[in-house]
Amino acid sequence: MNDFKPLSPTMDQKIRESFAAQSMMTTLGAKMVHVASGTTEIHAPILPGSRQQHGFAHAGLTFAIGDSAAGYAALSIMPDDHEVLTTEMKINLLAPGKGALLIARGKVIKPGRRLVIVQADVFARTEGKDTHIAMLTGTMIPFAPV
Amino acid sequence: MNDFKPLSPTMDQKIRESFAAQSMMTTLGAKMVHVASGTTEIHAPILPGSRQQHGFAHAGLTFAIGDSAAGYAALSIMPDDHEVLTTEMKINLLAPGKGALLIARGKVIKPGRRLVIVQADVFARTEGKDTHIAMLTGTMIPFAPV
Amino acid sequence: MNDFKPLSPTMDQKIRESFAAQSMMTTLGAKMVHVASGTTEIHAPILPGSRQQHGFAHAGLTFAIGDSAAGYAALSIMPDDHEVLTTEMKINLLAPGKGALLIARGKVIKPGRRLVIVQADVFARTEGKDTHIAMLTGTMIPFAPV
Amino acid sequence: MNDFKPLSPTMDQKIRESFAAQSMMTTLGAKMVHVASGTTEIHAPILPGSRQQHGFAHAGLTFAIGDSAAGYAALSIMPDDHEVLTTEMKINLLAPGKGALLIARGKVIKPGRRLVIVQADVFARTEGKDTHIAMLTGTMIPFAPV
Repeated sequence: MNDFKPLSPTMDQKIRESFAAQSMMTTLGAKMVHVASGTTEIHAPILPGSRQQHGFAHAGLTFAIGDSAAGYAALSIMPDDHEVLTTEMKINLLAPGKGALLIARGKVIKPGRRLVIVQADVFARTEGKDTHIAMLTGTMIPFAPV
Repeated sequence: MNDFKPLSPTMDQKIRESFAAQSMMTTLGAKMVHVASGTTEIHAPILPGSRQQHGFAHAGLTFAIGDSAAGYAALSIMPDDHEVLTTEMKINLLAPGKGALLIARGKVIKPGRRLVIVQADVFARTEGKDTHIAMLTGTMIPFAPV
Repeated sequence: MNDFKPLSPTMDQKIRESFAAQSMMTTLGAKMVHVASGTTEIHAPILPGSRQQHGFAHAGLTFAIGDSAAGYAALSIMPDDHEVLTTEMKINLLAPGKGALLIARGKVIKPGRRLVIVQADVFARTEGKDTHIAMLTGTMIPFAPV
Repeated sequence: MNDFKPLSPTMDQKIRESFAAQSMMTTLGAKMVHVASGTTEIHAPILPGSRQQHGFAHAGLTFAIGDSAAGYAALSIMPDDHEVLTTEMKINLLAPGKGALLIARGKVIKPGRRLVIVQADVFARTEGKDTHIAMLTGTMIPFAPV
């Protein structure tokens, strides 16, 4: 529960369509499994084609789903006709991305008319245990229709 | 020209093999086109499967090649038996990734035994013109063999 | 409550002496009001000499106490003879530092032998109400005695 | 030389007055020694009251002058009636701040109507030799008069 603008059915559908239109999410096998007012959750398998040189999840995968989770968390509290873009995002990598599945949870830290500050945490699930592998903090810019 | 340890043939080969072992780079169509002492250059087409919802390069692609360019720049100045890992990376997105090709140039800002500070700049090439689309700064940790 | 190494009386005293030895904290009027295993709290008045051009808390003040709160949170879980240094810190400024007092709360996100990932949140207290004005995330390097 | 809007006499005076109005800069003994279109330079002695526990420059000092150098670089290319605020700034600390004087050089990486991306580099001068001790990258938001 939070104090953000509630998620409208229009925005819920808009987020799902926008996510589906990101071909990178399809390439990575990522799915949006949850979206609510100010929070999201994205799951992605660690596909054979998403790995770094030691066979773990590539930081590009971790970043991609963390950034998307954070961005859609920001979008979820915007007016229905707005868009958001990432302007900056820092990722701290906490542990190797071992296992079969990554889980990214995005949330809004501070809403704003001009900027929205967001966070995402990424976990690697292996044998039912989740390890916190990355923390992202960043800034989204809202865009109103012209 | 810089004052870093020169790139040995052993390290040159090690970097090319490590890059080739990153299945994510293959998925993204990325190629290491240059590596020298403290600098690298990676090219990646903006594939149909690497896009965000407006058809531009996904930030995950921009991050993935920028992070790799920065990481291999750090590795290039390490002793031949060392590895490096990204511990943190901030990306500032400067412009949309429009066009057909992204170019990431990595460099070492400050070498160190315990940490190496790195930077990467990413450009989008369209009709022969390069636009600076992202700046990344981050930290790599060297690992010696155990 | 957390799973970090408990704070020993030796470390508690070491942290208080280290804080007292930071002349910048004295200049800024900052006080360490709490330290436990993995968490700290620092208070600083917004002195007449700590302001930016509009009369609010200078970002340098906000950063200084946030960085110290995060650093001592990391130190609190180290062996008694270790030190830590900040290697990188990002600050997201969320709101102007209005009021009479800033409060920085530091915590450890991920302990490690080679690196400790930390966070600090800074609040401005005005008429009994606390506003979240900054979020800092960063990396501390532990140093063992040589 | 760069392609940014030239610095007007009005803006030059505005920047100097704004800097003088930052009481924190006075507390730290900092001086704006150069301002041009898209670049600035600030000097600060490492005062007895600006130190960390080992007697070196406190990261709060390094951050404060780096942030100001970056911010005024952004302001220098704005229309005369605009202001800017820092929204985020990452600092990578490269070496201890030893010596008598810190020098911060700010520059604009990417101008914009809604956001300006900036960088600052901080050097410690000791016996005539400058050591690169910090790199800052961040984002400034312009504000037009209401």
